[in-house]
Amino acid sequence: MRGAVLHAPGDIRVEQRPDPRIERPTDAVIRLAATCVCGSDLWPYRGIEAVDGPAPMGHEYVGVVEEVGSEVTTLRPGQFVVGSFFASDNTCEICRAGYQSRCVHAEPVGAIGTQAEYARIPLADGTLVATPESPSDDLVPSLLAASDVLGTGWFAAVAAEAGPGRTVAVVGDGAVGLLGVLAARQLGAERVIAMSRHTPRQELAREFGATDVVAERGDDGVAAIKELTDGLGAHSVIEAVGTQESMLQAIRATRPGGHVGYVGVSHDVALPGDELFFSGVHLHGGPAPVRRFLPELIDLIVDRAIDPGRVFDLTLPLDRAAEGYQAMDERRAIKTLLTV
Amino acid sequence: MRGAVLHAPGDIRVEQRPDPRIERPTDAVIRLAATCVCGSDLWPYRGIEAVDGPAPMGHEYVGVVEEVGSEVTTLRPGQFVVGSFFASDNTCEICRAGYQSRCVHAEPVGAIGTQAEYARIPLADGTLVATPESPSDDLVPSLLAASDVLGTGWFAAVAAEAGPGRTVAVVGDGAVGLLGVLAARQLGAERVIAMSRHTPRQELAREFGATDVVAERGDDGVAAIKELTDGLGAHSVIEAVGTQESMLQAIRATRPGGHVGYVGVSHDVALPGDELFFSGVHLHGGPAPVRRFLPELIDLIVDRAIDPGRVFDLTLPLDRAAEGYQAMDERRAIKTLLTV
Repeated sequence: MRGAVLHAPGDIRVEQRPDPRIERPTDAVIRLAATCVCGSDLWPYRGIEAVDGPAPMGHEYVGVVEEVGSEVTTLRPGQFVVGSFFASDNTCEICRAGYQSRCVHAEPVGAIGTQAEYARIPLADGTLVATPESPSDDLVPSLLAASDVLGTGWFAAVAAEAGPGRTVAVVGDGAVGLLGVLAARQLGAERVIAMSRHTPRQELAREFGATDVVAERGDDGVAAIKELTDGLGAHSVIEAVGTQESMLQAIRATRPGGHVGYVGVSHDVALPGDELFFSGVHLHGGPAPVRRFLPELIDLIVDRAIDPGRVFDLTLPLDRAAEGYQAMDERRAIKTLLTV
Repeated sequence: MRGAVLHAPGDIRVEQRPDPRIERPTDAVIRLAATCVCGSDLWPYRGIEAVDGPAPMGHEYVGVVEEVGSEVTTLRPGQFVVGSFFASDNTCEICRAGYQSRCVHAEPVGAIGTQAEYARIPLADGTLVATPESPSDDLVPSLLAASDVLGTGWFAAVAAEAGPGRTVAVVGDGAVGLLGVLAARQLGAERVIAMSRHTPRQELAREFGATDVVAERGDDGVAAIKELTDGLGAHSVIEAVGTQESMLQAIRATRPGGHVGYVGVSHDVALPGDELFFSGVHLHGGPAPVRRFLPELIDLIVDRAIDPGRVFDLTLPLDRAAEGYQAMDERRAIKTLLTV
């Protein structure tokens, strides 16, 4: 089959890879309907995360079940499925508490690489959620978004306790931040402040439900949030970047007793204990347990209550994955969908 | 009046200080019934926090209202009262959300110094809670504990979401940690693991409801907690020290999706963002909003449902405050009560 492989920073090639097959009786093999490039794929692409030899890429996926292992009981070939970037058994104590990304048997799907024609998904019964019926083509981008960026933005909004009566600020205007805006509104937040200085992203944020846009960042951004919230700060802040500046911006924009939900993969962050202590905020985040939210998100999508697929502003065939990476790296695209 | 003043590290003197009087119409002046020495008083006493000239000491207090300002409506002279170490109006949006220690008009009582015969308490209506009647002498230590160490341990247990079915680990065997044990049990925790290597503190922890004691600390302590929790870590961890080692110990001893409640005043802590991110824990803490819990804690104490005053293992008259500091500094005493 064909699949995307990162050979060195900036060097993505779509080339022949071995066809995946059932390796364990709990596996499924799916034929990808679509896949995409994640903001976190840019870390190794940019050489900020070390690339250790040729690496298959991609961890977001929707597709059709091709084959299941002998112990898979809830899925059958032909079903359209969505899964998370962590395979999980969905039965252990950690999964049952809603933290499937930290399942005691968790396996990163990124190691398998879903920017490809086919993928082997471990722990298929726990990991994959089938849609009620085969979705129409126009729903595929939104279902693909549920696999990571929507699920991650949703988790951030839940972690930040977005809800009725709350003012929510969102740090980061990538796909996850934008879908954090959508999630906060769906969860009932009264006011959602998108922090963005890019006009197309500001516009999409408003379409997703942002009531305010703040273009300032850092200390100026914090001051702007305080000005919009009687000097107190937001009740809830979503952090979707992962840098020292963005984390401090999120903590400082939150009122005492408020909640920060952070999902930007942390890079070179060291949180000063005294500032955190005296901030009095709640902090929760990490790799989103997307599996927890998939049934609910799939329902919202097939009911056409939400349209998260709008974050894909560039669609290319898999063979042109390199162009997709480049466009995101240069911030010409928010997120690239790859058709398979 | 007489009051304790810190002149330099290690140099506490009880000397003549000006009699406090009503300065603002929202003030009350109380005659102290008892006061005490806090673990946080040891930071300047040890010279770890800078001492900037002679400083009145103390922020924990119970006593009898002597005089009230013209705008005080809920208190009258003669009432026995308990207050927190932050004065708060208890009416602002932050107070109503339960974060009175971060009231928009908060004032630190420590700047006033309650290791004294009398103290002026700002924002008296919002800050002070009267007991139903004048308490018998044997209840005074427990009511004094409510003023800080019990309220702080209670907040830590609430922040850590201690409750039925939960296993709670407590890092720190000072008065706050020990009362965190008591709070966790009162909140219904199934299992409470005290981390302590000091026999008398281990014993008091057990009397307060600890079901297990772990003497190891650092990585060995974390391993011991995991061993007691099927390898997963505790649901809830109370951090009551405030150092880098204790914070990391608390985070590492918590299962993914679990809760760390941290109340040890943070000193030289920098939390590594990547470790925090991948831990998947909830983190909440800071200066405890003791005022939130005072009515409930006073009820539990006057009903003799809890006996938090047992943390005072040394009682001295105010004039011998210096001996009280020294005993705590040398860890000969858990906590010193000063009679006035």
